Amino acid sequence: MSAGSMSILPKKKLLAFFPLSFLAIASFFISVLVWGNVRLENKIYKDIARKILHKGMSEQYAYELLKKITSVGPRLTGSPQAEAAVELTRRIMHELGLDNVHLEPTEVPHWVRGEQEEGWISSSNSGRISVPVAAIGGSIATPTQGISAQVVEVKSFSELNRLGDKGKGKIIFFNRPMDPKLPNTFQAYMAAAIQRVQGATEAAKHGAVGALVRSLTMRIDDYPHTGLMQYDPGVTKIPAACISTRGANLLSELLKKDPSTTFGMKLSCVELDPVVSHNVVGDITGSESPEEIIVMGGHLDSWDLSPGAHDDAAGCAHSLEALRLIKELDLKPKRTIRAVMFMNEEFGGSGGRDYARSENRKGEIHLAAIESDRGGFLPVGFGVGDSQTFKPFKKWESLFQSVGLFWLRPGGGGVDIAPLGQQGTLLIGLVPDSQRYFDVHHSGKDVIETVNPRELELGAIAMALFAYLLSEEGI
Amino acid sequence: MSAGSMSILPKKKLLAFFPLSFLAIASFFISVLVWGNVRLENKIYKDIARKILHKGMSEQYAYELLKKITSVGPRLTGSPQAEAAVELTRRIMHELGLDNVHLEPTEVPHWVRGEQEEGWISSSNSGRISVPVAAIGGSIATPTQGISAQVVEVKSFSELNRLGDKGKGKIIFFNRPMDPKLPNTFQAYMAAAIQRVQGATEAAKHGAVGALVRSLTMRIDDYPHTGLMQYDPGVTKIPAACISTRGANLLSELLKKDPSTTFGMKLSCVELDPVVSHNVVGDITGSESPEEIIVMGGHLDSWDLSPGAHDDAAGCAHSLEALRLIKELDLKPKRTIRAVMFMNEEFGGSGGRDYARSENRKGEIHLAAIESDRGGFLPVGFGVGDSQTFKPFKKWESLFQSVGLFWLRPGGGGVDIAPLGQQGTLLIGLVPDSQRYFDVHHSGKDVIETVNPRELELGAIAMALFAYLLSEEGI
Repeated sequence: MSAGSMSILPKKKLLAFFPLSFLAIASFFISVLVWGNVRLENKIYKDIARKILHKGMSEQYAYELLKKITSVGPRLTGSPQAEAAVELTRRIMHELGLDNVHLEPTEVPHWVRGEQEEGWISSSNSGRISVPVAAIGGSIATPTQGISAQVVEVKSFSELNRLGDKGKGKIIFFNRPMDPKLPNTFQAYMAAAIQRVQGATEAAKHGAVGALVRSLTMRIDDYPHTGLMQYDPGVTKIPAACISTRGANLLSELLKKDPSTTFGMKLSCVELDPVVSHNVVGDITGSESPEEIIVMGGHLDSWDLSPGAHDDAAGCAHSLEALRLIKELDLKPKRTIRAVMFMNEEFGGSGGRDYARSENRKGEIHLAAIESDRGGFLPVGFGVGDSQTFKPFKKWESLFQSVGLFWLRPGGGGVDIAPLGQQGTLLIGLVPDSQRYFDVHHSGKDVIETVNPRELELGAIAMALFAYLLSEEGI
Repeated sequence: MSAGSMSILPKKKLLAFFPLSFLAIASFFISVLVWGNVRLENKIYKDIARKILHKGMSEQYAYELLKKITSVGPRLTGSPQAEAAVELTRRIMHELGLDNVHLEPTEVPHWVRGEQEEGWISSSNSGRISVPVAAIGGSIATPTQGISAQVVEVKSFSELNRLGDKGKGKIIFFNRPMDPKLPNTFQAYMAAAIQRVQGATEAAKHGAVGALVRSLTMRIDDYPHTGLMQYDPGVTKIPAACISTRGANLLSELLKKDPSTTFGMKLSCVELDPVVSHNVVGDITGSESPEEIIVMGGHLDSWDLSPGAHDDAAGCAHSLEALRLIKELDLKPKRTIRAVMFMNEEFGGSGGRDYARSENRKGEIHLAAIESDRGGFLPVGFGVGDSQTFKPFKKWESLFQSVGLFWLRPGGGGVDIAPLGQQGTLLIGLVPDSQRYFDVHHSGKDVIETVNPRELELGAIAMALFAYLLSEEGI
């Protein structure tokens, strides 16, 4: 309606028009203001994303943090190196000027590998051949002289069950490879890991004297990849070792030629009494709602065959660097952003559980927790909550694309923040590309040389941005 | 309109309704058919994508091809190794059972590095320090005893121009680093590469006796990264070398302390007469329109400091493996799919030009060309045509996501297929993640150990899928 046409309206209608017109004009201006604010907010966030990106990539300090953490060495729970890492990261948090830096206790297993393991194949055709093995984490030792027995190769527990008592007195050789066809290697890992975790128990139920498990990697090489196993109460404990993939292929081949081939192994690992270790906590206190908390974390402990550069010194470096970027850019988050270096993700997850139920949580409201425990490779996205809780975050995808990521999707986090999730905290997981992760995972190859400083920093930048957005917007 | 309400329509209207109704019903059925076909087609393509993915990831033969190509050694144009690679890939194409396998000639430069170069800094504070240098490709040699001169450090040509005649008799040290802030490292490379390509000419215009260029990498290490340079006709030719980034940082630091610091270098490279080399060509002949061609390619030649695993043995392996997958899956493409191993991308691009203008192109219609020349890293997307020609391809994005990629965008290809583009061919470039590319690019570090078999194979799978879709759908 043009202004000129108003004069021909009857007076009554004209009177009625005013409130409507007023409403229309008002809503127009409100829309303009709201839209303007949304645009302004987007612009502000885009600027902040760029600032975080530029500072991060210019300095690449995540890699310096990674150097410090890995320089401690392997950090198996209960080891002096794990304790040194606690002290180191507490000191780093102080140096970064974080608030509320403190340790929180958690009891952790203290399993020690002992002397380097020996593994050997003896077959009528080839004589005795040494192959690389490593005790699986939590295994009992063999007798001092080792054990040696005929080998039964299986690819699954159902295959084992079909064998009846043919496993009696034997070493069960779990030789299921990770499925190379899956683009996401974690799916392949999850499907094959059961033989490492439960293999010894299942083998013992069939009267086996030992369990030997193909390393969970898709590379064919000479590195055993260890990890956690569990004994079931009431089932005889038998020693369990992982064997390098090249060793596994050789054993499988020799078994085909000579089914009486034997395998020998000598493990001298021992389970000592549990010890008290610590999660390491540090904050940037929120300026408006300090009691509302966004947690970021990785785990300080690692397996003992390498300094755990990707698993999970990278996640610790990501979290510390994210806080450093937010602090040094003086972004002053409204809510508290916290880094937690969790202790004992690998040997049972006590750190995550104890963090969630600590007395210190009283009066704290954990809105969201972001975990990085999938390595320091190129970050491709974030898994956020479930399909319902994810929805409102889709709008931030383009902000993350501006710092190099590709997507936000429903997903969630890992072991360390799962207990917070049970209390209603939104769980978020950084998702780096997974192609190379199991090349190094839990093996002697998980060293800093396999981490690219740019890839690592991009992960820290993404974590900083997500934590900051959550601190401003809530959930 | 419900069926019951028809009875109350006047007869005339009822008559008029029939044709309309018929049309509506007909269009409904047509829509169902079309939609059904689209869905069927999508399903067929999805199945084919999965088949290619599964075969590729199960066998990971791209890496075997890469091993073969890199085992030849560095493949500088004109070198015996480059010729060996021509023979090798011709043989591989025969073994793969490709059609129409043949060589096409192209004249290439024959520049030879000679003895390993020497570079040294002399400053009053530190005495003489050796630093790693390498002649830039195409440089003239120094006199046998080398040259030594005071150094002027600049970060840009405009800075050089402002110096007036202060560069006279000096070595100009171009020390502009690649900008680490850009998530896409190719952007940083493109911005800094001019100093390597044109530095010697610009320095000579100011009376300099030599040019020294910071290596185009963001890693701080001891590897010189070479590449192409050009002399301008009419400008004195002066020798040009690249210096490792650690060496560049040291030189810059020493110059600050002692501006009279000198730099010495000894280069014994030589430009010999050009020689005739070859592109290597092989097809899967199209079953319906064999004259319509989809080309895939990478370049066989590399720089001479390493076997060029990423640059560009990876692109050759991608293309050969893509054809192998299509052939062994018996997909029988409607149009011809061709692999070309281009010769001489690095030293002037003659292979791509000669391919496009060859007599052999008569009667061939090149619909599209897909180039892989950005390394064998995780493939993240494809650049396709320009913003207009790209549009119809967006619909295939989800197919590529099903094999691990993230996006299709406007983009295009590289040096080797650009001449085809000038003839109207649609240009497509595989885009792997770029974070690690310049760690190794044109240096001694571009070796097979830096290539991950899974990442490489995903690139080949993506190429196979794109070539197949184009062969079925045209453009």
